[in-house]
Amino acid sequence: MKVKTADGEQDVRALWFEDGELVMIDQRLLPRSLEMVRYRSSAAVAEAIRDMVTRGAPSIGAAAAYGMALAALAGEDLAEAAATIKSARPTANDLFYAVDWMASRTEEGEGPVEAAERYAAAIVEKCVAIGSHGAPLIEDGHRVMTHCNAGALATVDVGTALAPIRRAWSEGRRFMVYASETRPRLQGMQLTAWELLQEGIDHAVMVDGASGHLMRQGVDLVIVGADRVVANGDFANKIGTYEKAVLAKELDIPFYVAAPVSTFDLSTASGEDIVIEDRSPEELTVIAGTDLAPDGANVLNPAFDVTPARYVSGYITEKGILSAEEISSMGGE
Amino acid sequence: MKVKTADGEQDVRALWFEDGELVMIDQRLLPRSLEMVRYRSSAAVAEAIRDMVTRGAPSIGAAAAYGMALAALAGEDLAEAAATIKSARPTANDLFYAVDWMASRTEEGEGPVEAAERYAAAIVEKCVAIGSHGAPLIEDGHRVMTHCNAGALATVDVGTALAPIRRAWSEGRRFMVYASETRPRLQGMQLTAWELLQEGIDHAVMVDGASGHLMRQGVDLVIVGADRVVANGDFANKIGTYEKAVLAKELDIPFYVAAPVSTFDLSTASGEDIVIEDRSPEELTVIAGTDLAPDGANVLNPAFDVTPARYVSGYITEKGILSAEEISSMGGE
Repeated sequence: MKVKTADGEQDVRALWFEDGELVMIDQRLLPRSLEMVRYRSSAAVAEAIRDMVTRGAPSIGAAAAYGMALAALAGEDLAEAAATIKSARPTANDLFYAVDWMASRTEEGEGPVEAAERYAAAIVEKCVAIGSHGAPLIEDGHRVMTHCNAGALATVDVGTALAPIRRAWSEGRRFMVYASETRPRLQGMQLTAWELLQEGIDHAVMVDGASGHLMRQGVDLVIVGADRVVANGDFANKIGTYEKAVLAKELDIPFYVAAPVSTFDLSTASGEDIVIEDRSPEELTVIAGTDLAPDGANVLNPAFDVTPARYVSGYITEKGILSAEEISSMGGE
Repeated sequence: MKVKTADGEQDVRALWFEDGELVMIDQRLLPRSLEMVRYRSSAAVAEAIRDMVTRGAPSIGAAAAYGMALAALAGEDLAEAAATIKSARPTANDLFYAVDWMASRTEEGEGPVEAAERYAAAIVEKCVAIGSHGAPLIEDGHRVMTHCNAGALATVDVGTALAPIRRAWSEGRRFMVYASETRPRLQGMQLTAWELLQEGIDHAVMVDGASGHLMRQGVDLVIVGADRVVANGDFANKIGTYEKAVLAKELDIPFYVAAPVSTFDLSTASGEDIVIEDRSPEELTVIAGTDLAPDGANVLNPAFDVTPARYVSGYITEKGILSAEEISSMGGE
């Protein structure tokens, strides 16, 4: 992705390897400040993942892979390094997958840095392909709505939902992106708007509750990411996604999910089997350090919701735009 | 409404007249602190309305009526006082209406305090009637969703959307109220949750984007207020209302609007003729004193949305629960 710095425009990733160090954008400081942090040990990387210096499952996976490479370069005990990194976040499947993948690659004799670079490159390659397949959906003058941050920051580079948007823009088409702020953590306002600003892509941030109002005034396309797509095409994503899907259907607006095939969980039959994580009340009530709710208020904070496949026009993957039926049939392969 | 104080439970209104003074809850300090402010002159009342010590069109109207009473008691120039109070807020129709009503009452010889008390009492009486008509919709074990604050703070006492909720609770039925936080100004989290807490009514606050998720898990009834109901039954209310209406229809959940007949604007044919106020970007991006958006981000902040009549199960008014057809036919009276 492009970012604007004091020295002009630069091309950076959410994280990369350089001079024997892992460099990461400190996403906790965005959008106020763009700062890179450098890591030389797997323990420091594990701590950075825990502290959310980087976030988004694919970016976390890549950080873990580079962390394992640092451990190998430093001659650390690899089993210990693996355990430390895996313990950094409780639920990110990419974290476990990346650590195990690195172990198997290095066992087979691949250089640790080369393996980690290959891991990160594969993520970006899939995002680029998602961009290629999705970009033709976006036409000149369109208004495209997205939610949360399924952008370069979350996926090393390019993004999933933002991949077709970047690609269509780079091909010269001009359109408007509506980024809903995405309460409670405001990733839409703080990360997606920041990414779009860096690349000069026309955008507007609005409260989540204004999505329907704007759709009714005219939106041509909704593209969201996915945390998990299950066998029947139902999918889990950031809370608020289901509402956009229902509104899109009511208003005959195409609604697309952008996600790599690695997000598909074909062992789960339907969305009813997806367990939704409830997060802390404080994540919702404490904003900019101030608790805004009355003392004793009861708060519900579901982090995700599930959208049934019938609301989805298509799944933009690195293999092309798939239908729910095509996903289901992948299970039988 | 009941409020909890250091001395136990008290019955208070959003504002009232006492010992020659207008007393108002300073709503800017809620939910952190419950403090009353006292006013002795119409100029001070006008300033308080401007500074949003009280808010909600009916409460603003009552404050204006009491402000005119203070002007009369102090022997002020009444025309000047009227002009000062009317200039306090630009768009609240109740403000202009209340000032003119007071002028006509005092011209006809009614005592100014008596007239103001009658003005405030009429608002509360309508809210009580809305509560009586709407309460039978709420059954034991129900989950009732509302949005923004259409409560006692906005309407001197009792509220509109909260009136059936208070009444059903006082009749002994036990149910759960979902109060969506209502970005950007968080009236759901800060005012509605506070009112429900004071009366011990079971509730949960959630982000606006979780409304659909919770409805899908099971909501029995949605009740919202209205800023304006037009001749065909379309209505304007706080941004986010339209989304709830569409979701309720999709999930076969009854969706009611609670509003006094004075909210009906029969001179406007349909919702398409309602102009939506766009408010400042800062109202959205600055929370608890901190601007959370990236510099240069483009922000849209529509304050209201319009919900077509076809999504409304009924309009709970002081005259009973009306259909859109009944509203339309009122225009012909």
